Amino acid sequence: MGDYGREAIRVHAELKGKISIISKRKITTKEDLSILYTPGVAEPCREIAKNKDLVFTYTSRWNIVAVISDGSAVLGLGNIGPEAGLPVMEGKAVLFKEFGGVDSFPICLDTQDPEEIIRTVELLVPSLGGVNLEDISAPRCFQIEDALKKKLSIPVFHDDQHGTAIVTLAGLINALKIYPRNMASMKIVICGAGAAGIAITKILDNYGMKNILVTDSKGIVSSSRNDLNDAKKAILSITNKTNESGTLQDALKNADVFIGVSGPNILEEKDIATMAKEAFVFAMSNPVPEVHPDAAKKGGAVIVATGRSDYPNQINNVLAFPGIFRGALDVRAASINEEMKRAAAEAIAALVGPDELKKGIIVPSPIDRAVGEAVALATAKAAIKSGVARLVFEETELIKIIRNNLKS
Amino acid sequence: MGDYGREAIRVHAELKGKISIISKRKITTKEDLSILYTPGVAEPCREIAKNKDLVFTYTSRWNIVAVISDGSAVLGLGNIGPEAGLPVMEGKAVLFKEFGGVDSFPICLDTQDPEEIIRTVELLVPSLGGVNLEDISAPRCFQIEDALKKKLSIPVFHDDQHGTAIVTLAGLINALKIYPRNMASMKIVICGAGAAGIAITKILDNYGMKNILVTDSKGIVSSSRNDLNDAKKAILSITNKTNESGTLQDALKNADVFIGVSGPNILEEKDIATMAKEAFVFAMSNPVPEVHPDAAKKGGAVIVATGRSDYPNQINNVLAFPGIFRGALDVRAASINEEMKRAAAEAIAALVGPDELKKGIIVPSPIDRAVGEAVALATAKAAIKSGVARLVFEETELIKIIRNNLKS
Repeated sequence: MGDYGREAIRVHAELKGKISIISKRKITTKEDLSILYTPGVAEPCREIAKNKDLVFTYTSRWNIVAVISDGSAVLGLGNIGPEAGLPVMEGKAVLFKEFGGVDSFPICLDTQDPEEIIRTVELLVPSLGGVNLEDISAPRCFQIEDALKKKLSIPVFHDDQHGTAIVTLAGLINALKIYPRNMASMKIVICGAGAAGIAITKILDNYGMKNILVTDSKGIVSSSRNDLNDAKKAILSITNKTNESGTLQDALKNADVFIGVSGPNILEEKDIATMAKEAFVFAMSNPVPEVHPDAAKKGGAVIVATGRSDYPNQINNVLAFPGIFRGALDVRAASINEEMKRAAAEAIAALVGPDELKKGIIVPSPIDRAVGEAVALATAKAAIKSGVARLVFEETELIKIIRNNLKS
Repeated sequence: MGDYGREAIRVHAELKGKISIISKRKITTKEDLSILYTPGVAEPCREIAKNKDLVFTYTSRWNIVAVISDGSAVLGLGNIGPEAGLPVMEGKAVLFKEFGGVDSFPICLDTQDPEEIIRTVELLVPSLGGVNLEDISAPRCFQIEDALKKKLSIPVFHDDQHGTAIVTLAGLINALKIYPRNMASMKIVICGAGAAGIAITKILDNYGMKNILVTDSKGIVSSSRNDLNDAKKAILSITNKTNESGTLQDALKNADVFIGVSGPNILEEKDIATMAKEAFVFAMSNPVPEVHPDAAKKGGAVIVATGRSDYPNQINNVLAFPGIFRGALDVRAASINEEMKRAAAEAIAALVGPDELKKGIIVPSPIDRAVGEAVALATAKAAIKSGVARLVFEETELIKIIRNNLKS
């Protein structure tokens, strides 16, 4: 059992579930019943029938995000199925509420067929303000997210991809503040070409980082290989421009940055030592990193980040998704686009002050309550600026709305 | 706008939705995060992967009921679609929580195809403790409920059918205490052969009432007609044993009981006057009854019930569904069967004391907080006795569990 496993079992059994659905208004009189239910409720129904948009005024839909999984890639546990994935999805709902004020409901689907998942989510939309896809295995997750983004006019976000990518970018932005180097030419090795690896590759490229090698279990992803899935083929256009082949160790030589989203203990101190001087190591495999943070330091890394809560620089998605959805919901964004993700990453980075940077701290603490508001504001402003917001506010008004809804 | 319409609009806009999803435990430390989410959460996941049943121990699933609609028959408003139906489904979720302690989540589906609705609900099951179908038009509702009852091993309950049927039966049981007559031979006319009418017919037959005529907009449902859907054909085996034809008015002559689940103002005082002496009139069309309660009294009815909250004897489903699901969930019933429905009806009836019966009161007030517990206990006991309960308790233990969960 892991570090917190025994205590988690105890707490989960004691709570009998981590979320609860409550009524915002108590019913004490027959009149309450007549207003919240029949006959009074017929009137908001009639209004929405005339103008569908009013469903965001008269119901909770404006603030509801479904956390949807098929249990095919739960944490590092693999394809354990929808029931076994439910504790994670409930945990996600807890984080949505605690850090974003978002009403989130976990849905674990009893199918792993991408077409069926797409259709089911589509059918659920009239009750939802947004969709957070979770723990769906690659490359199926790309197909599902792409299809839903095209079909739906509410935000769709696969957190394993974009949450991780955003927080990684935030950390990298800050690492570059401490140890500046040329963003376009610095050599980045991304180990892992699943959901997170592919999304990190895209966001870094988008941000201007143009010297990226991606590796999977077979080595460097290159056009010489004939075993690549569509997602890996697609990133060839933005990575490995000199068509290198070889192992992860080959790739690592003189690399400025290592980003691991693969598996435990695949690197040692001597591998890190082959990297460029003042290297950055993001070893984010969970719960056990690709290389132990102490070994990475000994190998010469000056910035080390992991997924571990007992070391500094925990790259945790909770820094991103609650605030991103808070911001997207509050301006009723039709989607979560690249501009919004980039703004969120910059907002997260900006929360780390100069004193912390001096100590090598590149991301805020995952329980820092200031993060949700800053990310929400940056995301909402980017949504307005990029034209996907249905509601447009001045900044002071926006801050008021976000603060109020964070408490909801 | 209806009586409560204006106030309902104001309250719905002010609340911005009637339900909210909360975390049962606050997150204040990194440790909380590690227990409720990663890495600790992996342990309950692993346990459930080994034994699926533990999902009822470690997650909220044991207490979650989805209120599922396609918006095809919302209140008396008709096919207004999924978005416009959402305020009703949220209202239902409020009542589930307030009167049954049940965590209920509204899902309005963007399809009205029965096969697609069946499949979607099936796929949602890993997250659900029960399914409450709502405001789905007849005869589609029968097909959908029947298929889901066969496929799923969690309770499936179409409230428009069974909730109404159970409360009607409860009222009739009490009416017979005040004005006894032979249950098997008394003449009952049920006006309306939709979801509620068909279900009422079945529950009354099951209870021993064997002289029933059902009417629809074309008159008495009889084997001479060639315009009957499957549901109407099916009830021919338990109604109209002398194969009568004619109008509602024809049916009503010398009837002991009128049960209306059709539409407003279709009967007058003079129609009621053609019924047997000391007739019972249940005019439950909402918000306007089939006959005004005062007119029914003037026509000679001794018991009058309606759906109106401003008259005595409001036949309101809220007397049934919260307690029924509370009881079914607490013994983890595989279904809600006839024995459980019957027990629920008798429990509701038993809550009306002799003094109230003397005044012609046949059902408790819809906001009577004692109802949920009594109905839950009766339902749970009937589930155990009929062999559909997965958890079996002694009565004293059962009462403790129910009381505790009613507060949840």
